[in-house]
Amino acid sequence: MTVLVVGSVALDSVETPFGKAEDVLGGSGTFFSASASHFAPVQLVGVVGSDYPVDKLAPLRQRGVDLAGLEKADGESFRWRGRYRHDLNSAETLETRLGVFSHFRPKIPEQFRTAPFVFLANIDPRLQLDVLNQVEKPKLVACDTMNFWIESRRSDLLALLDRVDLITLNDGEARQLTEETNLVKAARWIMKRGPRHVIIKKGEHGAFMFTERSVFFAPAYPLEHVFDPTGAGDSFAGGFMGYLARTGRIDDDNMRRAVVYGSAMGSFAVERFSIERLLEIGTSEIRQRLTEFRRLVAFEEELPD
Amino acid sequence: MTVLVVGSVALDSVETPFGKAEDVLGGSGTFFSASASHFAPVQLVGVVGSDYPVDKLAPLRQRGVDLAGLEKADGESFRWRGRYRHDLNSAETLETRLGVFSHFRPKIPEQFRTAPFVFLANIDPRLQLDVLNQVEKPKLVACDTMNFWIESRRSDLLALLDRVDLITLNDGEARQLTEETNLVKAARWIMKRGPRHVIIKKGEHGAFMFTERSVFFAPAYPLEHVFDPTGAGDSFAGGFMGYLARTGRIDDDNMRRAVVYGSAMGSFAVERFSIERLLEIGTSEIRQRLTEFRRLVAFEEELPD
Repeated sequence: MTVLVVGSVALDSVETPFGKAEDVLGGSGTFFSASASHFAPVQLVGVVGSDYPVDKLAPLRQRGVDLAGLEKADGESFRWRGRYRHDLNSAETLETRLGVFSHFRPKIPEQFRTAPFVFLANIDPRLQLDVLNQVEKPKLVACDTMNFWIESRRSDLLALLDRVDLITLNDGEARQLTEETNLVKAARWIMKRGPRHVIIKKGEHGAFMFTERSVFFAPAYPLEHVFDPTGAGDSFAGGFMGYLARTGRIDDDNMRRAVVYGSAMGSFAVERFSIERLLEIGTSEIRQRLTEFRRLVAFEEELPD
Repeated sequence: MTVLVVGSVALDSVETPFGKAEDVLGGSGTFFSASASHFAPVQLVGVVGSDYPVDKLAPLRQRGVDLAGLEKADGESFRWRGRYRHDLNSAETLETRLGVFSHFRPKIPEQFRTAPFVFLANIDPRLQLDVLNQVEKPKLVACDTMNFWIESRRSDLLALLDRVDLITLNDGEARQLTEETNLVKAARWIMKRGPRHVIIKKGEHGAFMFTERSVFFAPAYPLEHVFDPTGAGDSFAGGFMGYLARTGRIDDDNMRRAVVYGSAMGSFAVERFSIERLLEIGTSEIRQRLTEFRRLVAFEEELPD
């Protein structure tokens, strides 16, 4: 089955303790697509400026990412410049230039409107709602968000919650949105407002998936070399949604597996700049990492007598 | 098999957003013993002052904690006063009065010297080394430590590393000791200096166990009501060592299970003040939480075709 993603397609300039990259492929839609395309056909909706090196997206197209929804607008592309210090846990944003992204109004191409899996990456909740008005009864809709929208578009975000099946957000955002410190309570608060599933991402500390009846936890893979954390969350979402789209099932067991695939894809994304590593890996690497994930948490229950 | 613990036996005064406790049982040796006694006979070595309400330790004795190594010295008992703010992640120490603990020289009773499992709780590394000179070929020796000793007793701590099989420390301490930000590298640094196992505790984010050939991760149980985090780490250690002592095996599979038992015991400890919850629970609660732990991380591997 196909997965539709609406998000940013940007140019990133990143500095980490290990190197520098200038104007490389970035944005939530880009990372998501590169990751999800390992599992299922992807339909990408976004906007780029006249300066965007569209030819560099060719590897995505070759992997099955349909770029028919990628609008080319007059003006500059969305650019983000950031830096990671020694601990790699949080990016310091040095500059954000929205460019054509500031006037982005997603137009979902006719042939994308029946996509069974829809991911609304981190954009204005009003646009996320607008996308939902253009699609037809998807099997599962998931959204992401961020602190900026929680603060400035709270009521739109609450309206969105009522219309999605799943939300991914990080622990700080979950606390900010719900005003609950405890993540179990935060997840419950969110589920009351609509989504049946809440995925709380904790970066290097892994991710929780809460549903009404169960909690699932997947650690982040303990990498010895984290090169550039940019895009880890969107690559997680891409692996998660891609796996669901590939299998077409949204039962609890399959959603759990999807979280692990998401974690695996997030762990690949951070091994190189941009989507480099995501384009490089194949099924055998993914398979191998899944096995390592299983080993990481595997224990045999054997109760004391 | 028996587990010997050398640590503090203190009186804690704690304030959390949920309540206050004055002069309740605390200290690393106390939490460890209350936790480990669910699994195996415990031998406790520590010191209390003449003001200590020794009768309150009766429940520990009833659970199989041998207090023959608990020295009563003239003077005041070790007292700690701390406060947790809203996020419960880190204690703010308001007052530490070492009292008789400042002159503590552990004397291991004759009948304790052959204990097969030894836990050196967080005390001066010189005293930890001194304990090792008094015991006879234990099957497994583990130690804990803290930032204060890493800073002030580095060379003694390094000497200790060379003589223990396992160390437990938190992520901040691991980074401080090794000057490595990456925990995989930090664990490797430590293993080079002696211990075959390194357990890095991340509080609410779970715990890693590193060995030369594998990494194991156990999440912290996602509790909706964390009441008082004091003693979680020592209760973890108690569950871990207690389980090893009960089973007598230190193969990788069994060590993994022990980490999960440790996590379970840590999760109970934080549900009430002091060792209250640890004294309250029985086998069925522990069994139940183990099952919940398994469910928390359970996923079936099913690779995409």
